[in-house]
Amino acid sequence: MREYEGGIAAVGTGESRLGRDDVERAARRLAGRVWRTPVVRCDRLDALAGTRLWLKAENLQRGGSFKTRGALLAVERLAAAGSRGVVAQSTGNHAIAVALAARAIGLPAVLVLPEDAVPTKIDLIRETGAEIAFAGTVLAERTAMVERIQELRGYDVVDPYQDRDVVAGQGTATAELIAQIAAEGSRLDAVVVPIGGGSAIAGACLAAAGEGLAVVGAEPDAVPAFTAAVRAGEPVTVPAGHTIADGLRPDRIGSLPFDLAHRTVASVITVSEGAIEDALRAALLHARLLIEPAAATALAAALEHASSFGADVGVVLTGGNVEAGLVTSLLPGAGVPS
Amino acid sequence: MREYEGGIAAVGTGESRLGRDDVERAARRLAGRVWRTPVVRCDRLDALAGTRLWLKAENLQRGGSFKTRGALLAVERLAAAGSRGVVAQSTGNHAIAVALAARAIGLPAVLVLPEDAVPTKIDLIRETGAEIAFAGTVLAERTAMVERIQELRGYDVVDPYQDRDVVAGQGTATAELIAQIAAEGSRLDAVVVPIGGGSAIAGACLAAAGEGLAVVGAEPDAVPAFTAAVRAGEPVTVPAGHTIADGLRPDRIGSLPFDLAHRTVASVITVSEGAIEDALRAALLHARLLIEPAAATALAAALEHASSFGADVGVVLTGGNVEAGLVTSLLPGAGVPS
Repeated sequence: MREYEGGIAAVGTGESRLGRDDVERAARRLAGRVWRTPVVRCDRLDALAGTRLWLKAENLQRGGSFKTRGALLAVERLAAAGSRGVVAQSTGNHAIAVALAARAIGLPAVLVLPEDAVPTKIDLIRETGAEIAFAGTVLAERTAMVERIQELRGYDVVDPYQDRDVVAGQGTATAELIAQIAAEGSRLDAVVVPIGGGSAIAGACLAAAGEGLAVVGAEPDAVPAFTAAVRAGEPVTVPAGHTIADGLRPDRIGSLPFDLAHRTVASVITVSEGAIEDALRAALLHARLLIEPAAATALAAALEHASSFGADVGVVLTGGNVEAGLVTSLLPGAGVPS
Repeated sequence: MREYEGGIAAVGTGESRLGRDDVERAARRLAGRVWRTPVVRCDRLDALAGTRLWLKAENLQRGGSFKTRGALLAVERLAAAGSRGVVAQSTGNHAIAVALAARAIGLPAVLVLPEDAVPTKIDLIRETGAEIAFAGTVLAERTAMVERIQELRGYDVVDPYQDRDVVAGQGTATAELIAQIAAEGSRLDAVVVPIGGGSAIAGACLAAAGEGLAVVGAEPDAVPAFTAAVRAGEPVTVPAGHTIADGLRPDRIGSLPFDLAHRTVASVITVSEGAIEDALRAALLHARLLIEPAAATALAAALEHASSFGADVGVVLTGGNVEAGLVTSLLPGAGVPS
């Protein structure tokens, strides 16, 4: 790999560089406005993993995912600059987060979703009163729709992967995890984060800078966009296979997250659909947490590999917006109430 | 009601009286040995309740319920006194807790369960290697079996309702909740706790003493043992109707919990089976927490009545040991993974 090309030093001009400072600033702006989600321990998951797991339960976050963090900062910045409305594309959780932030701040919002977006996420957006537009199933179709709406309405785009506030805001989840574990007198050897468009892993890399812990990514076998980008040396569009991890369906990593993360991540683990299902079920029945398949992808990677990362491994459970029908289909045979 | 008869002042001799001090002592003994479970907030549940709910997530406790607290203290006390083994009856969670404590301390244990105990709870006990004996479906059948085992084996009984350490230990869940909310700069107007044999509500009354908050009990319509005891002025056995809240099936309140709680509780709400089911589903889909029906009974009471209790209402979600089949049966129609 050529030195510094695409690395942090090459991210835009001096002002657009991002570092741990930006995550700390984001955390101060978010204090008291998003939940400080708990870190959950579970003896049975530790036994399965063969090491101690510290689960950052962002499935319990407002709006049901960690995306609430970055969107709030970005929409607030745009509102302060006189925005007349916002538009964002997303597989779902960033759209929910933008819709909630726009409602809180009093801006109109249009959210562009794939046609196969999960109904739970669509419902959460509808509850806010925001407009929804559907556009195909792959990232390029959604971004084209966003550009059209931006032109027609004069709305500002809240990009889920390229926005500095979004990436720094997402990093606060990992920063909080690190601080919460320090408060317990422990420290992490590694943190495992799922990779969709890349904001979670990029934020985690910023938050972990100088903390001496390995950042590990997890993505579905079916959509290995980060793995492909690392091989190519730059973001590339991968053929999108089907994954139940709807939040990890983006078929291309954002260039900002790739630049921030690709040299910092210790490794990226690709996870089978069966392992994602098993992890979702284990989180529910052992840790009593409902998580969505994207979060289960990170947990699956941790259950399989965490013992090789060290004695204390964090897992960012990014969200909990999952279809009841999917949960039902993954549980042991429906029985009669006892 | 005749003054002081059956009240706190009448509980046994001076040494067997219980107070807030005992809960604080129990909390110090438990520190670092049970999870300090999180207090979870959820905007959608707040909207349903019409007030702020603070959910003490003891479903995330070791062993899957708050019973781990009291059992650890009681088994430890018996072991220190030279016990050769312990025996306990329970609908499930106290048995799990005693089995885990006995294994940790290295004592043999026999757990007496009703024949309709839920399989999840039976499995958790089996995992510890403890012995299980089944005895009928009502409390009197289980206590008779406990006495037989006590005589045959010379084991010590860990009573789920009458043991001082158990009641004080259970109280630490509410004490922690009060402290956690104080740390956020808030304070509770009320706390809602489910009533089975009575250790949770008695512990809550001890923990809440002098804190200026109302303690509210919740029990199933089908087994209103506390309501009947209050009417009778003493514990009475009620005809046990069927409830999905297996943890609340004891058909008689323990005399110690009754003495501690019956003049302190602000009110007791009886809850329909349908409301218990709705609350379990709401906890899962809105708060992303898997709770068992006993905990859902408290949540159901809070969703229906908390707005009349004040602006800040705690709910002790006592456990999360629930059948997968029951969860499946309560979720909206099983669908195809999207």
